[in-house]
Amino acid sequence: MYEITFQLEKTKDRPLYVQLYHYLKREIQNGQIKAGMKLPSKRKLAVHLGIGLNTVDSAYQQLIAEGYVESRVRKGYFAAEIDRISSIMEQVTTTSNPETILPSVTNMIDFHYGHVDIDSFPHTVWKKCMNNTLYLQERDMFISGDPQGEHGLRNEIADYLFQSRGVRCVPNQIIIGAGTQYFIHLLRLLLGKERVFGLEDPGFHRVREVLKVEGAEMRFIPCDESGLCVESLKESQADIAYVTPSHQFPLGMIMPISRRVELLKWAGRKNGYIIEDDYDGEFRHTGKPIPSLQGLDTGGRVIYLGTFSKSLIPTIRAGYMVLPPELADLYQRKLQGYKQTISKMIQETVCLFIKDGHWERHLNRMRILYRKKNQVLLAELEETFHDQITVIGEKSGLHILVQVHSDKSEAELIQTAERKGVKVYPTSVYHSKKDNHPTILMGYGGLSESDIKEGIRLLKKAWL
Amino acid sequence: MYEITFQLEKTKDRPLYVQLYHYLKREIQNGQIKAGMKLPSKRKLAVHLGIGLNTVDSAYQQLIAEGYVESRVRKGYFAAEIDRISSIMEQVTTTSNPETILPSVTNMIDFHYGHVDIDSFPHTVWKKCMNNTLYLQERDMFISGDPQGEHGLRNEIADYLFQSRGVRCVPNQIIIGAGTQYFIHLLRLLLGKERVFGLEDPGFHRVREVLKVEGAEMRFIPCDESGLCVESLKESQADIAYVTPSHQFPLGMIMPISRRVELLKWAGRKNGYIIEDDYDGEFRHTGKPIPSLQGLDTGGRVIYLGTFSKSLIPTIRAGYMVLPPELADLYQRKLQGYKQTISKMIQETVCLFIKDGHWERHLNRMRILYRKKNQVLLAELEETFHDQITVIGEKSGLHILVQVHSDKSEAELIQTAERKGVKVYPTSVYHSKKDNHPTILMGYGGLSESDIKEGIRLLKKAWL
Repeated sequence: MYEITFQLEKTKDRPLYVQLYHYLKREIQNGQIKAGMKLPSKRKLAVHLGIGLNTVDSAYQQLIAEGYVESRVRKGYFAAEIDRISSIMEQVTTTSNPETILPSVTNMIDFHYGHVDIDSFPHTVWKKCMNNTLYLQERDMFISGDPQGEHGLRNEIADYLFQSRGVRCVPNQIIIGAGTQYFIHLLRLLLGKERVFGLEDPGFHRVREVLKVEGAEMRFIPCDESGLCVESLKESQADIAYVTPSHQFPLGMIMPISRRVELLKWAGRKNGYIIEDDYDGEFRHTGKPIPSLQGLDTGGRVIYLGTFSKSLIPTIRAGYMVLPPELADLYQRKLQGYKQTISKMIQETVCLFIKDGHWERHLNRMRILYRKKNQVLLAELEETFHDQITVIGEKSGLHILVQVHSDKSEAELIQTAERKGVKVYPTSVYHSKKDNHPTILMGYGGLSESDIKEGIRLLKKAWL
Repeated sequence: MYEITFQLEKTKDRPLYVQLYHYLKREIQNGQIKAGMKLPSKRKLAVHLGIGLNTVDSAYQQLIAEGYVESRVRKGYFAAEIDRISSIMEQVTTTSNPETILPSVTNMIDFHYGHVDIDSFPHTVWKKCMNNTLYLQERDMFISGDPQGEHGLRNEIADYLFQSRGVRCVPNQIIIGAGTQYFIHLLRLLLGKERVFGLEDPGFHRVREVLKVEGAEMRFIPCDESGLCVESLKESQADIAYVTPSHQFPLGMIMPISRRVELLKWAGRKNGYIIEDDYDGEFRHTGKPIPSLQGLDTGGRVIYLGTFSKSLIPTIRAGYMVLPPELADLYQRKLQGYKQTISKMIQETVCLFIKDGHWERHLNRMRILYRKKNQVLLAELEETFHDQITVIGEKSGLHILVQVHSDKSEAELIQTAERKGVKVYPTSVYHSKKDNHPTILMGYGGLSESDIKEGIRLLKKAWL
């Protein structure tokens, strides 16, 4: 049995299980723990290190999932054969994408676009809301809810959307459900499968993936500095436009009012629909607020999608869709047999969190915090790289794009950064065709100001 | 302003908000609260009655949803016009189905098939698990999880399924997700849209609905006393069979081993698949346990579906699907871009609940409890109706079917029961064709023994 002697840091930056996972993985990789060696039982190790059984279990599960450790029934846990590991490692590396399981297992500074600020989340208040829900509605949790989502929550969302995003709707138009991909599927059922989708190019890959797997017809519509080119849209056969006007993904521009009006006119003339994905519209750093497309729409042509992933908790897997009245009627006739996909517990907790004003307070705090992070990132980039880079899409949201004026390819930029301990992300994956401009995606929601500064210092070493 | 003088009962049977809802609804219906009359503010009423603001809000929301009360911005709540109410009432009545929002708002004894026993649920333990999850994994909730579902939970499910249901699988074959309807959709993407579904007739309407809306090809295969007729299946062009072998829905028979083997042979020869929906297989009251179809399958032909709706909390909206290894590989290649649909919070809580043995204890308690309820129901029916009824499907699950030997139609049986204060349910909705045997569906999971006895007493008055 291997003796584990290792110092856990009680730091806020890395959960204990991640530290333990990382330590064991390194020990297996460098041969300190030999292939076939038995690891201590979870219970023993927990006692030995003075940590929770859950922590050890999480670390072991992750190691098992990645193939470093094998679990043998009634025998225990064993370090895997190195051959197996390397073949699995290869697999993991080739299939890795920005949404792998543990983006920050190492000491890397990770500019992941999906991360949000953890330290500023009102954990205690959230727990209170969850507990209040469980206590107050103990029996309610056993009675089937409304298939469109709990009425109370839809009420809160309608109020919020009107006040904060200029969206006009009544709760009856709102469907609560398991995220954007699920909504895209429901919309295809609702609008008919013969519809042709016009997608921003570059654009959000997760929606493209669903449409591809479902066999939907797609047209890739180029973006200019105002967002989706409506002229190109007109020339395509698309009759549904999927857009991210508050903060184009990934380019980051905000669609100006003139383009919005143009897009709405197209939808009206075409009898088409616009899917407005407002995935991080809560966070705008500079410039005058522009009302949502939905708020400008008088013809019932805009379907609005929102999510709690950026504004609340990324793993909550809950979002909402606002249908125009006519489509809401159709939904209630055609899809009312579809049961709700979000647990009532989660819905009621979010409802209470909003109702008691916590969401608004949280959003206000986060707006200031993210604006500050955005400023620090831009200032550091400017001071460090001057005119050797061009920053795009910095006015809103939780990520920016950086065009690097150098001979290095996108892959080289990412790899050299990684060697210096910084994770940055590609943008080529969001383009329908290969593109040779080396443009890097950098999210900053989950990093502290000092991490951002350190990250840029390391990027300078990597790139200059 | 209307003065509300009404006595809330501190009873376990009906939540306070339901009592308040019911009271106000009656007062509006009988004209005590006149159309256009202003109701007290939520806050005032809560103080007046000495109850929580949430309780009042829930009652008001329900009244608004049903059209009895109107909310006017910055003015307050008003009783709606009677004309509006009756037109809405009509709508509600015509679209009502067994899964309406509040099945027990009245004093009716409700034999709803989806209800489970609320009083025996270990609410306190569940809350502890939820809290432990929130405290221990506070930071983890902000890191994207595995798209197939948390590894820990899949591990627990695999162990449970092996021990309790004879299902053989590793966590890699398990997909956690938002219920049966969602899984049916994923399976169509996975197996190809040209597949023809062979469905039990009568059978589970929710699956039929999804397949119909998606435009899938369906064949309705009759059931005999052993379940789905494999001979008829062979004659159809179906290459996917959807079955409920542990407790056929709604007829309730258990598929014997011989029929299971026959079905597996069909799948092997046809290169087809069997979807085994084990929706309430946890509860078997008499007879020898039969292993799951999946456990008998050596050819990788069975897809197993399970849910936490019956065995845990109906509104949790979470289930799992076990794919044969070959399909699990295909899933990981083709659908890995599909994000998880269940909140990590819920997954981790369920995981802890199972890991610490609470689920097993709960299931054991519930088996005894439901068996007892089943016996009471059968004894009462026998004593009351003798040979005037035939009971079907009583050996397993949480509902039975009752064939009533009388001239009354299904609708008449339901209506006469309702007039005596008992809700029972139709079975004709589960048949592909009109069927004239008056057969009634009675769930008993959510009723106490005394309610069951009282219900049967009232049914006697209604039917005899």
